[in-house]
Amino acid sequence: MKARVYVMPKAGVLDPQGKAIGHALEGLGFTGVKEVRAGKVIELDLAETDPAKAKAAAEDMARRLLANTVIESFRVEIA
Amino acid sequence: MKARVYVMPKAGVLDPQGKAIGHALEGLGFTGVKEVRAGKVIELDLAETDPAKAKAAAEDMARRLLANTVIESFRVEIA
Repeated sequence: MKARVYVMPKAGVLDPQGKAIGHALEGLGFTGVKEVRAGKVIELDLAETDPAKAKAAAEDMARRLLANTVIESFRVEIA
Repeated sequence: MKARVYVMPKAGVLDPQGKAIGHALEGLGFTGVKEVRAGKVIELDLAETDPAKAKAAAEDMARRLLANTVIESFRVEIA
């Protein structure tokens, strides 16, 4: 069972990587880019076959390792 | 209009970051994690209001800056 964990910087938290991407896009001539936020996706292939249990496990992994919940929020999707 | 660009290493491309996350999860006692792949999400806030045009612009940005299409594949979602 595949689980995808999306990790994004929380609103209000400074995101220098996003800012840098925004400037680079501008430098390439892309106009109308208002804000850019950069985050991570972690795709997990789990042995667990129960979707609810797989989601709970992935959320536990996100809280304990994948996301820094002080400055990042996460979302788990089961596919 | 918000666009999300998901960038993942292509199948078959070595992903050391994913491997490191897999080992760390194992070290924390998580069992049953078969494979881990690590990618990026870039959230763009675009001035464009037409979904088709916004998607085309985001795809162009992905090809020219956000993804290295030799080793990475990308997917654009308009929200």
